[in-house]
Amino acid sequence: MAHKHGHWKERIQFANAEDKQEFSKYPTKAGRRSLSRSISQSSTDSYSSAASYTDSSDDETSPRDKAQVNSHGSSDFCVKNIKQAEFGRREIEIAEQDMSALISLRKRAQGEKPLAGAKIVGCTHITAQTAVLIETLVALGAQCRWTACNIYSTQNEVAAALAETGVPVFAWKGESEDDFWWCIDRCVNTEGWQANMILDDGGDLTHWVYKKYPSVFKKVRGIVEESVTGVHRLYQLSKAGKLCVPAMNVNDSVTKQKFDNLYCCRESILDGLKRTTDIMFGGKQVVVCGYGEVGKGCCTALKALGAIVCITEIDPICALQACMDGFRVVKLSEVIRQMDVVITCTGNKNVVTREQLDRMKNGCIVCNMGHSNTEIDVASLRSPELTWERVRSQVDHIIWPDGKRVILLAEGRLLNLSCSTVPTFVLSITATTQALALIELFNAPEGRYKQDVYLLPKKMDEYVASLHLPNFDAHLTELSDEQAKYMGLNKNGPFKPNYYRY
Amino acid sequence: MAHKHGHWKERIQFANAEDKQEFSKYPTKAGRRSLSRSISQSSTDSYSSAASYTDSSDDETSPRDKAQVNSHGSSDFCVKNIKQAEFGRREIEIAEQDMSALISLRKRAQGEKPLAGAKIVGCTHITAQTAVLIETLVALGAQCRWTACNIYSTQNEVAAALAETGVPVFAWKGESEDDFWWCIDRCVNTEGWQANMILDDGGDLTHWVYKKYPSVFKKVRGIVEESVTGVHRLYQLSKAGKLCVPAMNVNDSVTKQKFDNLYCCRESILDGLKRTTDIMFGGKQVVVCGYGEVGKGCCTALKALGAIVCITEIDPICALQACMDGFRVVKLSEVIRQMDVVITCTGNKNVVTREQLDRMKNGCIVCNMGHSNTEIDVASLRSPELTWERVRSQVDHIIWPDGKRVILLAEGRLLNLSCSTVPTFVLSITATTQALALIELFNAPEGRYKQDVYLLPKKMDEYVASLHLPNFDAHLTELSDEQAKYMGLNKNGPFKPNYYRY
Amino acid sequence: MAHKHGHWKERIQFANAEDKQEFSKYPTKAGRRSLSRSISQSSTDSYSSAASYTDSSDDETSPRDKAQVNSHGSSDFCVKNIKQAEFGRREIEIAEQDMSALISLRKRAQGEKPLAGAKIVGCTHITAQTAVLIETLVALGAQCRWTACNIYSTQNEVAAALAETGVPVFAWKGESEDDFWWCIDRCVNTEGWQANMILDDGGDLTHWVYKKYPSVFKKVRGIVEESVTGVHRLYQLSKAGKLCVPAMNVNDSVTKQKFDNLYCCRESILDGLKRTTDIMFGGKQVVVCGYGEVGKGCCTALKALGAIVCITEIDPICALQACMDGFRVVKLSEVIRQMDVVITCTGNKNVVTREQLDRMKNGCIVCNMGHSNTEIDVASLRSPELTWERVRSQVDHIIWPDGKRVILLAEGRLLNLSCSTVPTFVLSITATTQALALIELFNAPEGRYKQDVYLLPKKMDEYVASLHLPNFDAHLTELSDEQAKYMGLNKNGPFKPNYYRY
Amino acid sequence: MAHKHGHWKERIQFANAEDKQEFSKYPTKAGRRSLSRSISQSSTDSYSSAASYTDSSDDETSPRDKAQVNSHGSSDFCVKNIKQAEFGRREIEIAEQDMSALISLRKRAQGEKPLAGAKIVGCTHITAQTAVLIETLVALGAQCRWTACNIYSTQNEVAAALAETGVPVFAWKGESEDDFWWCIDRCVNTEGWQANMILDDGGDLTHWVYKKYPSVFKKVRGIVEESVTGVHRLYQLSKAGKLCVPAMNVNDSVTKQKFDNLYCCRESILDGLKRTTDIMFGGKQVVVCGYGEVGKGCCTALKALGAIVCITEIDPICALQACMDGFRVVKLSEVIRQMDVVITCTGNKNVVTREQLDRMKNGCIVCNMGHSNTEIDVASLRSPELTWERVRSQVDHIIWPDGKRVILLAEGRLLNLSCSTVPTFVLSITATTQALALIELFNAPEGRYKQDVYLLPKKMDEYVASLHLPNFDAHLTELSDEQAKYMGLNKNGPFKPNYYRY
Repeated sequence: MAHKHGHWKERIQFANAEDKQEFSKYPTKAGRRSLSRSISQSSTDSYSSAASYTDSSDDETSPRDKAQVNSHGSSDFCVKNIKQAEFGRREIEIAEQDMSALISLRKRAQGEKPLAGAKIVGCTHITAQTAVLIETLVALGAQCRWTACNIYSTQNEVAAALAETGVPVFAWKGESEDDFWWCIDRCVNTEGWQANMILDDGGDLTHWVYKKYPSVFKKVRGIVEESVTGVHRLYQLSKAGKLCVPAMNVNDSVTKQKFDNLYCCRESILDGLKRTTDIMFGGKQVVVCGYGEVGKGCCTALKALGAIVCITEIDPICALQACMDGFRVVKLSEVIRQMDVVITCTGNKNVVTREQLDRMKNGCIVCNMGHSNTEIDVASLRSPELTWERVRSQVDHIIWPDGKRVILLAEGRLLNLSCSTVPTFVLSITATTQALALIELFNAPEGRYKQDVYLLPKKMDEYVASLHLPNFDAHLTELSDEQAKYMGLNKNGPFKPNYYRY
Repeated sequence: MAHKHGHWKERIQFANAEDKQEFSKYPTKAGRRSLSRSISQSSTDSYSSAASYTDSSDDETSPRDKAQVNSHGSSDFCVKNIKQAEFGRREIEIAEQDMSALISLRKRAQGEKPLAGAKIVGCTHITAQTAVLIETLVALGAQCRWTACNIYSTQNEVAAALAETGVPVFAWKGESEDDFWWCIDRCVNTEGWQANMILDDGGDLTHWVYKKYPSVFKKVRGIVEESVTGVHRLYQLSKAGKLCVPAMNVNDSVTKQKFDNLYCCRESILDGLKRTTDIMFGGKQVVVCGYGEVGKGCCTALKALGAIVCITEIDPICALQACMDGFRVVKLSEVIRQMDVVITCTGNKNVVTREQLDRMKNGCIVCNMGHSNTEIDVASLRSPELTWERVRSQVDHIIWPDGKRVILLAEGRLLNLSCSTVPTFVLSITATTQALALIELFNAPEGRYKQDVYLLPKKMDEYVASLHLPNFDAHLTELSDEQAKYMGLNKNGPFKPNYYRY
Repeated sequence: MAHKHGHWKERIQFANAEDKQEFSKYPTKAGRRSLSRSISQSSTDSYSSAASYTDSSDDETSPRDKAQVNSHGSSDFCVKNIKQAEFGRREIEIAEQDMSALISLRKRAQGEKPLAGAKIVGCTHITAQTAVLIETLVALGAQCRWTACNIYSTQNEVAAALAETGVPVFAWKGESEDDFWWCIDRCVNTEGWQANMILDDGGDLTHWVYKKYPSVFKKVRGIVEESVTGVHRLYQLSKAGKLCVPAMNVNDSVTKQKFDNLYCCRESILDGLKRTTDIMFGGKQVVVCGYGEVGKGCCTALKALGAIVCITEIDPICALQACMDGFRVVKLSEVIRQMDVVITCTGNKNVVTREQLDRMKNGCIVCNMGHSNTEIDVASLRSPELTWERVRSQVDHIIWPDGKRVILLAEGRLLNLSCSTVPTFVLSITATTQALALIELFNAPEGRYKQDVYLLPKKMDEYVASLHLPNFDAHLTELSDEQAKYMGLNKNGPFKPNYYRY
Repeated sequence: MAHKHGHWKERIQFANAEDKQEFSKYPTKAGRRSLSRSISQSSTDSYSSAASYTDSSDDETSPRDKAQVNSHGSSDFCVKNIKQAEFGRREIEIAEQDMSALISLRKRAQGEKPLAGAKIVGCTHITAQTAVLIETLVALGAQCRWTACNIYSTQNEVAAALAETGVPVFAWKGESEDDFWWCIDRCVNTEGWQANMILDDGGDLTHWVYKKYPSVFKKVRGIVEESVTGVHRLYQLSKAGKLCVPAMNVNDSVTKQKFDNLYCCRESILDGLKRTTDIMFGGKQVVVCGYGEVGKGCCTALKALGAIVCITEIDPICALQACMDGFRVVKLSEVIRQMDVVITCTGNKNVVTREQLDRMKNGCIVCNMGHSNTEIDVASLRSPELTWERVRSQVDHIIWPDGKRVILLAEGRLLNLSCSTVPTFVLSITATTQALALIELFNAPEGRYKQDVYLLPKKMDEYVASLHLPNFDAHLTELSDEQAKYMGLNKNGPFKPNYYRY
């Protein structure tokens, strides 16, 4: 079984491939309430027919052992099969249709090439959506080298399409851990080219450069990091005084947070439950544990579809909000016997205990929208008196001696990562923020950013939002001079104080 | 246009399997506004892991050519593979958990065996849910022989499980048309056993008996018919004075209608769109054509998830309801350029024309929730200047010469039959109604029912509903004597006049 | 204390004026589930500043004792004060703005004067809205004489405005019962003019003509009746074979029913509760007794504003709908201790008993949206151990010996009649239906209508709806010839079968 | 524009009583987006039957000229009429029922008397709700002297009830400005008693002490300020280095903000529109200008009741939220012709201009939920060609030469202050926060608070919330030791980082 992540000498053992797959999303303490929702392997598969085509190939040769050349004669890449480029191009074109913010960024910034001179080394999921980002960076003047942040998530045909157009990509689906670090190394360590910008998702690339090529940081103008984990690592570096370049925390930008949590969960909870269980929502008794943004999104959707929802909370302020929003606030033990569905969104551990699982009624569905795989005490279910029956992918029936079945989804891992897809529109917001962060750091006058971790300037948050408004045919109102003066605002924003709660 | 219900000599060719699959659901004029939403092949597949197991077998021998015996030594059945019985049993047990109304019917009526003496020949989809119905009928005292109403919809392992317990089942997935009628014939034409009740879905069984064994009707106490098509045929027979036994129209019972249309569409529109396109609903501009029950269900769900919905209507009363419910009422041509999604729910034809398809914006999704495949003028899209690209199962991109893509779902056929599943709970309501209709007809004193088509008595509608209330832990209030007297009602119902609009 | 209604010799005793005021709305058995929601005295007051102006006059002279002449020299009327005509005209003009359906009816039908020759005697509430109706009838060619159906509800200045333009009106606010019948008599019994149409609201006018001037019916082409009570009387007459002219039941037309119940209650429950108690809805635990149209309207609104709503039902079908709509279905006794608000919408009696009132928590609000004043057992609260404290108009605190207070609204009478207003738009629908019913009956070819009670033809229901669509800027779609043929419909409707449930 | 806060020598003239009434709520720049929503005169009236009783008295003698003594023999107060104490007591008791948080605070803190030794001088609206606060402070050990922050808002009978129990109150409804400052002076400047805490609403009391008795600040441990205006003044003092004691900004506490804006507006927009116009919401086209918390609250309620809502925004982030929440984002000029209702919630000026008013359709309703009276350019309507017609209290018809009427509510002032009421529950949250702020400042160890403006510690925010949960019968979950450790949280909170967006 493949193992990724961690330095060779500090290897970590993973129980199985699925845990592995979520590795880079283990939220740490610092980020526990703002979970990153990246695209996962399973979701990728489900919306890529080409992927299944390419995966069915019987080609077992390691890409590292193949000699491949693109149509321009370059061999500075390593992908599964360069011949899949055409399929990948189609995927990219489809993604472009929902990522018009990046396309318009290309157009707006094209004249000035704000990334002319930028040499970006990137380590992200390699999907059609990332390809749109990478090609946008190129269009803005950057040179890019790219590798995957996850050994399973690469869309091979997309990697091929990028390689075909001349972006040195080193990634394929199903890398070994050795492959993983080899790919990163091939991105960074190349003759005659030295990165001056880093775009990272998870912090592995940054970690590698720190360990192996610290001198690279002399030229690097900044790091842009997207994940909770990576951001946490950066804050730790900063705290330890070891961060030697400015870094931009993209994960916590307002638009990303709201979309990744409230709105995205509003949509994905229904999808995740339907795809796995074909449940009818009307009249179902549901308890949602936790009424943060994730919980709010879940509750809104479920209530709207006719479920009868109650919530549990530890925080009286969130509890008061739940009351005002029309949800009963209960203790889990008070209602557990009656519930048809139990959903955890707390970011905590053991929110659903074995004792509560024992008290659930027959047919109760249990799933987790919150925090990796800690919220439901799944381990407690792996005991001899209980029978596990896998009835469908991501769906287990846990059977009690008396015949009672509890339906556990995704073995307690994140439901929406495992069993639903992330809309391209959400990925577009993240990608646009990443592009703007790179532009900002690359072009910032010296001294604007120190060796610290920054949030994107508010005005750029607003710019990201404004680039996405055309998707909705939304028309912004402009302040008149008189109004701007009255409000004490610049007509172009920012429009709110930093402490504003959207 | 192809019609199925011919006999051998009027055989028809089907363009392809998918048309076939829906053929028994072509709504006729009479039923056009209350479309039957039965389980489809695709939905069956998606929730039956066992089915895919059995389908992957390479066994190409026709079941008709096999000699099979169940563990009790009987060979009075014809299924794909009797050895799959165990898998089928598990599927049935899972279905039982969501069909507690039938289970409680078994319990309540068990003592008296209200179907003792009943000999029921049935022709329905053969799925886990129908199996629960059949086994309920048996538990109530009936003898049953069963066949499939659709050549594709049989769950082979369920058929095997039924055959194993002694129910003579004649059905498998992928029958030829010849097989289809052969199976029906084997059900009806058996030595030493003559049906006295018919349970039909689509009218083919009834048709067969009329054509081949009219004398059977001398003993038949009644027909119970579930589908729009079958009911239409019965009304035509009745009108022509040819209906020679009482028939019960199960399709138009209140509970079935409300669940099949309003509530079921409320849930399935989201599911169908998500599974095919991964669309984000928030902020999407959607036009729903038609504001009947189906349209109301779609609009409710889409609005709740943040879509901006407008509707088109021909009927001023429905239009006024749409206004009061907060939807703009527009003509399609007025808004077509701005729409992200177009959904037809009218029961009419050519609601979306080629001219309107030409004016849609790039990326517009078009689908049909209403009426077979007539609502969108799909034929007009099969012209040389347009390119069709199948991007996923049930998803086509139609590409205009200028590169514009319109995303057509299920080739204009019913989205929720093709791309989502029907909750077991809805099927439970139908099955319970069928069981009660059989009991009613079988036990009715002579003279209560003439040679005509009847709706289930209101009190039985209420009984069906009451059997499903425990699923929701709902507690009915009982009238006091004084209140019943004041209202002029019997304490046990019926509670509403016949003309009441729920 | 004034007494109205009933023939002098069959006088009925009323407990007090407020009961009196609702008298004509006592639903009878036949109509008990479709309660008429007419404008009430209190609601009239609250939206008429002019009314309060005129009411404050100290003029105690009976209108019957005054000699008044309008500016055209006519004295064929009897109103409070003809000089208030100008104020009344303004009220009428304001009402016209929200009754554009009638205005457009005037325009559309003006050329042909469909009521030319009609001599209509009317007995309704006399308000600005009715005035718009009356003046529409006149514009369509009719001659009208008018009187009030309620001794309290007349807007004096509106009556004056009508009298000023030449409509013989006999009505004022605060009539004695003797006045009431005198006014009716003056309308009917006038020299040289004999009514050929009757428009009634409550049946008193019809009753009077039957009793005193039966010969009038020789010329009468039809009766149009709006109220539950009046319609009930007509059905009784019909059943008894005593109905000697066709009658049109306006009360049960689809548009009126839906607006009067579902939509109107959706709006008025919030208004009624707020105006009386200033309650904050968010988080309130509410039980709604009865999930018919009235209950559905209440529940929708309360849930939307953040209340936590559960319902009680006797009918399993409605209970199942409540479940699917996301409401817990409970017995009142199970939840009564926790509730903040109890609302009755059943049409039954003693739904809230003294025992339940005893168990309510301190501060619980109790009110009735359903049926006159029978639903809450208010009588049981008039016992010595309880203290009543009137804290505001229509708001009583009932105080238990331990200090617990229950807040009773409108003494258990209809909350929305007593404590909120009826939108002019709803009255417009009723008035338009009345006008069309008159046109239909007056112009119907002989033989179309027998001596029976009829509902408005479906096509006219649709016409009423269509006349109200411009208020919403709604644009109807028209069927193409091809589509109409396919559907088997006339392009101009009717669009639905009679049994259709909107 | 008039400003109140001058002292005698800088006296200002008020245009009329209504301007006066709102003057202490003029938001200043700093606070413009978080408008304080205090109780207003009109709202007070509407829920106090006693008030109207007492107001109808013909007693024109100035309270300053009366000699009054309470039943304990004290004359250290000045109220309208001490004999009204009993009526006031009933009002206070009713208010107590909805302010159980304060009652429970009394109970919880009673043993320790956390305000023993506190001498609080207060200047707030004097209403039943404030009386509950004052009596809570007394129960916690404080001595209080009190005056009114608004010359119109005092409930005379409540002032009397407080005076009767021994609280020196100096306030009556309808003070002159001279009275206003005289009352403040009598509170502060009293022999043998010197305040050590200040509770202010608007900053007038604080201002007075600064100007006249600066030495008082030597003993004052802190100021608690509730209003936007007062808080703004404190920040200015602080900035200017003139703040000589710690001050607590109660206005910006999380619970107050959320309730005053989102939730409170969600409820009051419907109430304000209904009470003034009896509008039916269903199908109405509404544009809401501004999608901050106030706008969000308005939009949620209106959409839920069937209105068709679009919004205008200047801020792309809020605009994106509006899109995701299902509202079209438009420019006002694009839609103004079609709208039935226009609502401003921006905090800006001239959002609705004369040009837009000219383009509105007949019957359009215009009102302001946002910012004092600047949002609608009402001044532009006071021109000779337009006719104003007052049709009801707070409702004007502006009539164009062609007869078009625009319905202007509250002359463009805040609709919910003028035309609806503030729920006691919201006032309870504010009052509880004030009490806790006083306890915190009074008991804080020296050095915890400097001469600066503070927000209430997060933990106390949570405590305020927790005190209000019993109103909803909400049950908080407690962290286990293990969970608390895992989350790095104290089991008693605070539960969120300071930057958390609820």
